[in-house]
Amino acid sequence: MKRVVFVRHGQSEWNALNQFTGWVDVDLTKLGLKEAHEAGLKIKRAGLEFDLAFTSVLKRAIKTCHIILEDSDQLWVPEIKTWRLNERHYGALQGLNKEATAEKFGIQQVQIWRRSYDTLPPLAKPEDPNSALNDRRYAHLQKRSIPMGENLKITLARVMPFWEDEIAPAILDQKTVLVVAHGNSIRALAKYMENIPEDKIMELEIPTGQPLVYELNEGLEVIRKYYP
Amino acid sequence: MKRVVFVRHGQSEWNALNQFTGWVDVDLTKLGLKEAHEAGLKIKRAGLEFDLAFTSVLKRAIKTCHIILEDSDQLWVPEIKTWRLNERHYGALQGLNKEATAEKFGIQQVQIWRRSYDTLPPLAKPEDPNSALNDRRYAHLQKRSIPMGENLKITLARVMPFWEDEIAPAILDQKTVLVVAHGNSIRALAKYMENIPEDKIMELEIPTGQPLVYELNEGLEVIRKYYP
Repeated sequence: MKRVVFVRHGQSEWNALNQFTGWVDVDLTKLGLKEAHEAGLKIKRAGLEFDLAFTSVLKRAIKTCHIILEDSDQLWVPEIKTWRLNERHYGALQGLNKEATAEKFGIQQVQIWRRSYDTLPPLAKPEDPNSALNDRRYAHLQKRSIPMGENLKITLARVMPFWEDEIAPAILDQKTVLVVAHGNSIRALAKYMENIPEDKIMELEIPTGQPLVYELNEGLEVIRKYYP
Repeated sequence: MKRVVFVRHGQSEWNALNQFTGWVDVDLTKLGLKEAHEAGLKIKRAGLEFDLAFTSVLKRAIKTCHIILEDSDQLWVPEIKTWRLNERHYGALQGLNKEATAEKFGIQQVQIWRRSYDTLPPLAKPEDPNSALNDRRYAHLQKRSIPMGENLKITLARVMPFWEDEIAPAILDQKTVLVVAHGNSIRALAKYMENIPEDKIMELEIPTGQPLVYELNEGLEVIRKYYP
């Protein structure tokens, strides 16, 4: 039986401050660490043994991945980090308080930025010193491949090549795979796997720290989906 | 300039109990964690930016590696875990108290097992339920390739292919490389790099938690060696 397990990282410092986060590399809070340990315990109890783990290049996901692997006695499992599993890039909204943004631009506008499938947020400025353009971890990418802001449609388009080229082949190769990522990168993968239409996908909530198991057939179609 | 940085993990639970450890996957102690954080701070202060990290499949090294990368703000750096960087396999001595072993076999015999370059320790029994033969992390190896006990000569022979095929090419490719490993796997690499003769190598002490930097020329010969 083929299996992939998704886990969304737990609470981050900016979740706690109600700020748009995206690609900003904030840490987990104490609650976030606790959620990661709970996820590890669930995976251990469910007897899930991984052959390979994938995560983003953001520490809130990487640390969640490490905690899960350690707590389920499999810290030795190979782990691959990729920018393609990063959270949706929230453009110029990154670092802004969600409530203050709603006051400034109106609740409805913020709702559109948060919940529309294909509306872009205001874009980040390339001259921002904190721009991903100046970050060593993205130095292997052409400047024009580094997003300045994404909607879910664009997030999905950059996640999919990694699914197709790295994750799916590993699953087909009988590997049980762990993917520790973010609300929107997991949402993008869930959309693809469950064939959820564009006008429904933003309603799908990915709970934090809850291992989501997909059992797949030979064609990588979902047979069963559950939270152990 | 080409660079590789070796770090030996800090104190483990069995270091603290004065037990032979080898391939047994024991955790770091509080002191071991502290040593790892100190190593991370030294690396951060020295401004060492890694492109790639290598470690063993034993948690005391993996956790040291994670702490160093996190504390030096580069947790996103790709990390490769390999059994070839494991500690020397201590055979049937694994789990025995060093003092009790000296009482049973004589100080001189234990000294030979610990300090001879090419004397094997008593071998582990394949039927031992804790044998590496039954461990999922070594399942990709032929049973006959899994050691039941090693001297430094054999340790070196299994470390070297990984140096030659993975680490050295990365360094030649201008990557600054971190290797977090164990007393004897680092000793084996130091022997090779510094061309230390067999009758001198066991005298070389690799301090725990101290980043050891080698600067190398185009031929990967050592230009400079220092502890930042």
